[in-house]
Amino acid sequence: MRCATVRCRVESRAHTRAARSQVAADLGRLLGQDRVLRSGIEPYLRDATESRGLRGAADAVVLPRSAEEVATTVAWCYEREVPIVPRGGGTGFAGGAVPVGGGVVVSLERMARARSVEPLLWRMEVEAGMTTAAVHRLARENGLAFPPDPGAAESSQIGGNVATNAGGPHAFKYGVTGAWVTGLEAVVAPGEVIRAGGAMRKDVAAYDLKSLLIGSEGTLGIITAVWLRLIPAPEASYPLIGFYPTVERGCEAIERVFGSGTVPAALEYLDGGTLTAARHGFPAELPAGAAFAVIVEADGTEAEARASRTLLEAALEDADVLHAPTDPHDVDALWSWRHGVSLAVTARRGGKVSEDIAVPVESLGTAIAETLEIGRRHGLESLSWGHAGDGNLHSSFLLTPGDGEQLRRAEQAAAELFELAVRLGGSVSGEHGLGLVKNGQLVRQIGPLGASLHEGIKALFDPKGLFNPGKKLA
Amino acid sequence: MRCATVRCRVESRAHTRAARSQVAADLGRLLGQDRVLRSGIEPYLRDATESRGLRGAADAVVLPRSAEEVATTVAWCYEREVPIVPRGGGTGFAGGAVPVGGGVVVSLERMARARSVEPLLWRMEVEAGMTTAAVHRLARENGLAFPPDPGAAESSQIGGNVATNAGGPHAFKYGVTGAWVTGLEAVVAPGEVIRAGGAMRKDVAAYDLKSLLIGSEGTLGIITAVWLRLIPAPEASYPLIGFYPTVERGCEAIERVFGSGTVPAALEYLDGGTLTAARHGFPAELPAGAAFAVIVEADGTEAEARASRTLLEAALEDADVLHAPTDPHDVDALWSWRHGVSLAVTARRGGKVSEDIAVPVESLGTAIAETLEIGRRHGLESLSWGHAGDGNLHSSFLLTPGDGEQLRRAEQAAAELFELAVRLGGSVSGEHGLGLVKNGQLVRQIGPLGASLHEGIKALFDPKGLFNPGKKLA
Repeated sequence: MRCATVRCRVESRAHTRAARSQVAADLGRLLGQDRVLRSGIEPYLRDATESRGLRGAADAVVLPRSAEEVATTVAWCYEREVPIVPRGGGTGFAGGAVPVGGGVVVSLERMARARSVEPLLWRMEVEAGMTTAAVHRLARENGLAFPPDPGAAESSQIGGNVATNAGGPHAFKYGVTGAWVTGLEAVVAPGEVIRAGGAMRKDVAAYDLKSLLIGSEGTLGIITAVWLRLIPAPEASYPLIGFYPTVERGCEAIERVFGSGTVPAALEYLDGGTLTAARHGFPAELPAGAAFAVIVEADGTEAEARASRTLLEAALEDADVLHAPTDPHDVDALWSWRHGVSLAVTARRGGKVSEDIAVPVESLGTAIAETLEIGRRHGLESLSWGHAGDGNLHSSFLLTPGDGEQLRRAEQAAAELFELAVRLGGSVSGEHGLGLVKNGQLVRQIGPLGASLHEGIKALFDPKGLFNPGKKLA
Repeated sequence: MRCATVRCRVESRAHTRAARSQVAADLGRLLGQDRVLRSGIEPYLRDATESRGLRGAADAVVLPRSAEEVATTVAWCYEREVPIVPRGGGTGFAGGAVPVGGGVVVSLERMARARSVEPLLWRMEVEAGMTTAAVHRLARENGLAFPPDPGAAESSQIGGNVATNAGGPHAFKYGVTGAWVTGLEAVVAPGEVIRAGGAMRKDVAAYDLKSLLIGSEGTLGIITAVWLRLIPAPEASYPLIGFYPTVERGCEAIERVFGSGTVPAALEYLDGGTLTAARHGFPAELPAGAAFAVIVEADGTEAEARASRTLLEAALEDADVLHAPTDPHDVDALWSWRHGVSLAVTARRGGKVSEDIAVPVESLGTAIAETLEIGRRHGLESLSWGHAGDGNLHSSFLLTPGDGEQLRRAEQAAAELFELAVRLGGSVSGEHGLGLVKNGQLVRQIGPLGASLHEGIKALFDPKGLFNPGKKLA
């Protein structure tokens, strides 16, 4: 019922150009003219799903400078039933930032300040618009580390990372973004600033409002600042990448890593199709005919990282080729290449439908094989790579942009992928969230009662259904 | 409004003896006679708050053997508006397991099975009634570790640990119980089994229903089983305990630990009053006149633990006395003593009001001093110990059991402590939860809007207000 309500409202937002400019004019008067974008709003209407044809429309794009300005904007919108679409770096793969129902895009980019950095307490408080890369740099400059490392760090923002509970290669050892958030500040309906948690590291007083907002994809409120826990930076990081002639041999190596008794900082894989797509730019010689690659990383103090690397080398010992950089420059080059894989895969045909199912790790091999099989059935080139240790695949179906028929087949293929994830006891989303593209896929995972609790939470936080409408629907 | 509703229902539950025996008889017919406790129900009416006079009453105590039996019980109760009080080991300090409003106590003790143990996948699925100690042993027998270590491990149950999101000394490095739960099975209203998460390690599909149930203290549903993430057991653990002549000198040592660049597995403190109360049984000579002690632990591989210990020794270098056991037997003895501190403090006068505020770590010294000052103002012997690195104190006011006037003063002192926690930017509960004893303390921490979201979540999961009524009220 809730879904239906939201959808109606979304569809009824076919604003005229006149009404749109009125919203922008009113908000300009309310917040100050420089807070409302006058031109160049195009980039705010899309995210990384653009290559599959997703694009929205907005009545206004607002660039607030404080939580209070966000609250003022939300209060204005909430009173007038105008949709509110929070926006971070726009690097999402689920269409979460695409304003499909019009309304006001609230971009956090001008709220990018560190409110406090306390290296001797291993923490900082930063505004939501700070880029992930800036968070990393700030930690590193203070001898500390913020471990979560989702892709697109130079563009994505910490608020968006928290709102999607972003993962990344190092989530295997260190956990996803939410694991590092001790508190957050958010603007919720009808336009008030609340805080859940804070600088303290433990809090079991209330129901976990903080975790509800983490991963809520802007549908419950707008995260405006976060308190982050940090750790002393590992002294050394030694990645290893092993290449295998078959998926099976690679998956056996992954199993041996679990048996090695050391916890690698990362445990990644790339299948044959991905290696072909990302061949260019690999910082060493990439063996011809490799059907699978496994990346692990040993980290810690120098001694610890070396000891761990020895165990990981043994786990990967039957690789056809093992690339094991030790120089920090070469280590960075390997990770830069790894972080570029998603773009390289897109570049192969210009577009892709890339989903992010998570399965119990023993089903990884099955999910990798099924990704290829599903692609074959739909006549699509398919491949996958991802966070092997977390059973989290980026299963991708390649597209020629603008080919509507191919896109329809790819979306059908993605639906089969979600069904597969649930059948294997996993999740339809390990990283990207539901956004727009996985609407309706949740109920099969969590059942009707789970879905009704999910919808009840939305109705509790957002009774008018105005926060990022049309997203994260069960 | 919600609170008022719950309270009315609680007060109206003054069942007659006849009505009580009818509930037990009906449930016996429904579930099987051996599922309903016929005698010896006294221990099920209290928890670790007994020394402050808390005790409840129950219409029946049910001991189900499966999630389905729990669901049958809940459905029966929900239809008849009978309160449902889930019960783990009954070791809580917040009165969460005390059936203050009568109704049916659902004890999970007969659901203590491991459903699966998969050492090579670093995980297991266990039923809620397995004791924390049994979880630890099961992990250890398989070469793995389950790091959370709240006190009373032989009595407390994993379901209760999850329902309170229990902490413990090793939460500093490893996080609280919830950080290790990848999924849970629970019975929610009106009597259905749901699953949130599972064996997969990542899941961002739905709003975080799993984290809502974690720490919900039985007020949203009954947790019946959990999927736990494990890690390879650390090869070596080297605790150090340093004794200081003043609180200030001890707090300086704690600051130096943060500056040492190593993450200790634990970072604990005990104040002078606590050391006096727990003097007996300390496994070495406890220096006379010590006003403060700091415990740290280095762990990891043998090499890693030794390197970390060297850094931690340097941080604690100005201790008057440093006790640094290395033999595993001596290491266990130190931790056994540490886990016995709470009981030793109770033993001093026979009773205590012991609260668990958490503050930003830089305010630890202030909170320690204020605990003493608050006690002095109320004419009560007071002391504190706890998880220094997490800014989590166990501030205790000692009592003679049965002295009602003293208890009233202690509860007033506790209220001032909660006010202090909020003033310092912390939480009224870092470990124990709100339970019964902190009802009404939450709103000052999370504000009226936060409190109304908190109450909305309760109403969403439990529209009739029957799950553990009278607990965790904002």
